[in-house]
Amino acid sequence: MKKADKFVKNAAGRTVPTLVNGEKVVPFKGVNGYKPKHRGAAPRVPTCIDYPKDGNKLVKTLKDALQKSGLKDGMTISTHHHYRNGDYIANLVFDIAAELGVKDLRWVPSAAFPCHAPIIKHLDSGVVHHIEGSLNGPLGDYCSHGKMKGLGYLRSHGGRYRAIADGEMHIDIAVMCASASDMMGNANGVNGKHPFGPMAFTKADVKYADRTIVVTDTLVDFPCYPWEIMGNDVDFVVVLDEVGDPEQIVSGTTRITKSPDRLLIAENCAKFIDAAGILKDGMNFQAGAGGTSLAFVHFVKKMMQEKGIKARSMVGGSTKFLVDMLEEGLTDYIFDGQTFGLEAISSLRDNPNHIPIGIFDIYDFHAKGNLAQMMDVIVLGSTEVDVKFNANCVTHSDGRMLHGIGGFQNCLLAKCTMIAVPSFRDRIPVIKDEVTTLVAPGELVDVIVTERGIAINPQRKDLIEATQDSGLPIKDIKELKAEVDEICGIPEKPKLSDEPVAVVEWVDGTILDMIRKVED
Amino acid sequence: MKKADKFVKNAAGRTVPTLVNGEKVVPFKGVNGYKPKHRGAAPRVPTCIDYPKDGNKLVKTLKDALQKSGLKDGMTISTHHHYRNGDYIANLVFDIAAELGVKDLRWVPSAAFPCHAPIIKHLDSGVVHHIEGSLNGPLGDYCSHGKMKGLGYLRSHGGRYRAIADGEMHIDIAVMCASASDMMGNANGVNGKHPFGPMAFTKADVKYADRTIVVTDTLVDFPCYPWEIMGNDVDFVVVLDEVGDPEQIVSGTTRITKSPDRLLIAENCAKFIDAAGILKDGMNFQAGAGGTSLAFVHFVKKMMQEKGIKARSMVGGSTKFLVDMLEEGLTDYIFDGQTFGLEAISSLRDNPNHIPIGIFDIYDFHAKGNLAQMMDVIVLGSTEVDVKFNANCVTHSDGRMLHGIGGFQNCLLAKCTMIAVPSFRDRIPVIKDEVTTLVAPGELVDVIVTERGIAINPQRKDLIEATQDSGLPIKDIKELKAEVDEICGIPEKPKLSDEPVAVVEWVDGTILDMIRKVED
Repeated sequence: MKKADKFVKNAAGRTVPTLVNGEKVVPFKGVNGYKPKHRGAAPRVPTCIDYPKDGNKLVKTLKDALQKSGLKDGMTISTHHHYRNGDYIANLVFDIAAELGVKDLRWVPSAAFPCHAPIIKHLDSGVVHHIEGSLNGPLGDYCSHGKMKGLGYLRSHGGRYRAIADGEMHIDIAVMCASASDMMGNANGVNGKHPFGPMAFTKADVKYADRTIVVTDTLVDFPCYPWEIMGNDVDFVVVLDEVGDPEQIVSGTTRITKSPDRLLIAENCAKFIDAAGILKDGMNFQAGAGGTSLAFVHFVKKMMQEKGIKARSMVGGSTKFLVDMLEEGLTDYIFDGQTFGLEAISSLRDNPNHIPIGIFDIYDFHAKGNLAQMMDVIVLGSTEVDVKFNANCVTHSDGRMLHGIGGFQNCLLAKCTMIAVPSFRDRIPVIKDEVTTLVAPGELVDVIVTERGIAINPQRKDLIEATQDSGLPIKDIKELKAEVDEICGIPEKPKLSDEPVAVVEWVDGTILDMIRKVED
Repeated sequence: MKKADKFVKNAAGRTVPTLVNGEKVVPFKGVNGYKPKHRGAAPRVPTCIDYPKDGNKLVKTLKDALQKSGLKDGMTISTHHHYRNGDYIANLVFDIAAELGVKDLRWVPSAAFPCHAPIIKHLDSGVVHHIEGSLNGPLGDYCSHGKMKGLGYLRSHGGRYRAIADGEMHIDIAVMCASASDMMGNANGVNGKHPFGPMAFTKADVKYADRTIVVTDTLVDFPCYPWEIMGNDVDFVVVLDEVGDPEQIVSGTTRITKSPDRLLIAENCAKFIDAAGILKDGMNFQAGAGGTSLAFVHFVKKMMQEKGIKARSMVGGSTKFLVDMLEEGLTDYIFDGQTFGLEAISSLRDNPNHIPIGIFDIYDFHAKGNLAQMMDVIVLGSTEVDVKFNANCVTHSDGRMLHGIGGFQNCLLAKCTMIAVPSFRDRIPVIKDEVTTLVAPGELVDVIVTERGIAINPQRKDLIEATQDSGLPIKDIKELKAEVDEICGIPEKPKLSDEPVAVVEWVDGTILDMIRKVED
């Protein structure tokens, strides 16, 4: 299987392969340049005949379940990341595969975290051929150095759903951990010993995989309700002592930043949406769980209280902070794809206006519209931006791929997408002439907010006009860059080879960019 | 297009066509005799590019929406029946089609009711070629007399879902009425001016149809929540003055029978499940909304109270009666696919333990198990049964097809399926040597309960043994038949031609029986 072949320059001017891991791919054709003409995935048709009449699908071990699912060389295995850095299951799956002598698996997690570093040995030994999924930390670094046998394939959360539903990525076996399940496989993430929240990232997997295994540490009586996974979609249920550690979900997020610069950035974001007329009664917005995002919500909340207005909906990553706003009547609904912290999990379980959503609902581009595009504003972080308003969230300026792609691209469809970044980090400017890796096409980035000034995309004449007398530090992006370069100097370009180690897919399934091997 | 061709005798000994409305079909191969080997439907892949960026999918008229959906000759159009006999939309759709000069449509409602009699003129004129769906009253009678251009195609509720998901029945345009919707098409049946309840019957349609139109009389602000239909699946939204009359949902059901015979039948059913050890703490059962079913639940409720036990779940057709039981703590959950009466609708909207379910969840046979098979007991009505425990719920003994097939077949998967029938109606015996139309294969009918005695299927030795000392009037089915024949005499056979007018599909998609033209 060829990792990559036949390179072309795509509509964004980026050189990308037209063959990835042996499959033909379509180069990016511009933001609205590619329309699907094929029909979607046609899943395996099961029959009740093949499943226990009494609904009891329990098998003793995950190994049994994997063997009964027909685990063999070359298969595609999916896991989800709702436990984030506390997931125990993915490591276990590949340890079992190694024990069984299975090779060349494709792992398609909804995201991988530092806790998955043990899978590096299975990549080295050939148990896992390559990973397609949002990569964080050690696995990203491993891939950056060209050590993976196949190319990494970075899909946004919505892009992953789309790839599965479109039939681009077929899953043989989905191994889905749940905090509670009954013997039939009806399962959720809010009950049981170690609840983690909604199960947004499981929806495509259980519907389209040939086999679905539910793994839980808490078996409950039929029916396990809520059933974010329906037993009708499940082949086997395995009960283990533990499946994940919810304490590791939060790691590093969910506290309002204390950095004065970041607080200033967040406040600038909030003031900007006020000045632009976006902050109004009935608004819908996505509020992330990162430190700056939380600070943004903090300032928005204060303004809402001062003005006596409320939001119609907020989309999480939900936190105690969002839950407080729901309970204080500052929003009608929280829609939630990933919960951070116990208070948010209880709220999701008990408050009928705190609602789990699926990735299809919020992010799928091959849908008849989606919820992200209904958001009045979304604030995102980035590793780099450039003077054309392009943004990067996966590689550092040294070229190493250390951050997950997550739902970043999907959020770009919002009515106003703002990128909140410090103007430099460790004396390296964040505003570049050209981003190292293109993840967000500039035409979809509306505003870049730094502690040193706010740059509005020239295409958004409406925003420029609305805020021109606001007194906010609005600057031309090049002017902002010059200011920062003046302080930091222009850094050396990263040492990158021509060899690709991963590709970045655009939300429509075309190839937006490739990530090059880092030369140490 | 040939209506029917090449007749064979199937595994149930019934003569059935192997070609229906121009398509090859598989004759019934026995209850667990047919396993699907194909993959499922591959739906059209839409893209956000083709839908309004602001989510506003409102079009002025249903005619506009149908034209923009590309309505043309030969298409398949679906509607749902949650308003039951109060639906206004199906008639309107075909009036518009007639006005536009469109011909040869296939109408695939989840069920048709007497209110749809106006569609007969469109069948006469060729606007509608034939109907595939559960038929009640005038349309059934019309079909029985061989007046439809194509063959009627009776699929159970679960069978209809299966047919769509399997790719057997492709829907071009789904026209889904909702009691409330936002401009994006997020919609439900519990809010708005004329709420009707859950939207169980819309789930396959909106996921697999090429185009989905939501029609409502109540437009609400984004987001319309709950969203039983997600706007991501919707092409157009139309607001009309009225879409249906919820008063007509109940017509004829939802009151406990006052007939002494039927009360006795219901009491016998309740006593039977007690004697058989089925009535116990934590049981799950389906409780229908018909008069005898309601009486059964009434007796079960009394026994539960006496014994101090509670159910784990009850599956509706929900009524005030079931809601009272939920509120009195006699069940943990109601799972609901069709709501009868305002109290049940309010409960569904406001009580988090009264939960809407989809047809996939409860009834799909091409799933990895389903909820029906998890039910400890389900009580059904029938038009006829026979000495082999076969049952019929669609034709009268005169051969006329006057009753919907509904979820009847799907309920046969329950752990104990009971058929509750009077032993005769209008001096015509209900127990036959052979049912006029085979809808339920006898091996899946466990118990037949009449006012005159209870017959247990000889295959269910466990039930026979458990109830042998119960003092209940348990009789051999032939003995019971002889008793009734003694009273009524043996009626003449219906006058039926050899010409088929409709086929009855088994839950797996094979052809179980055909319905013959009635000769007047």
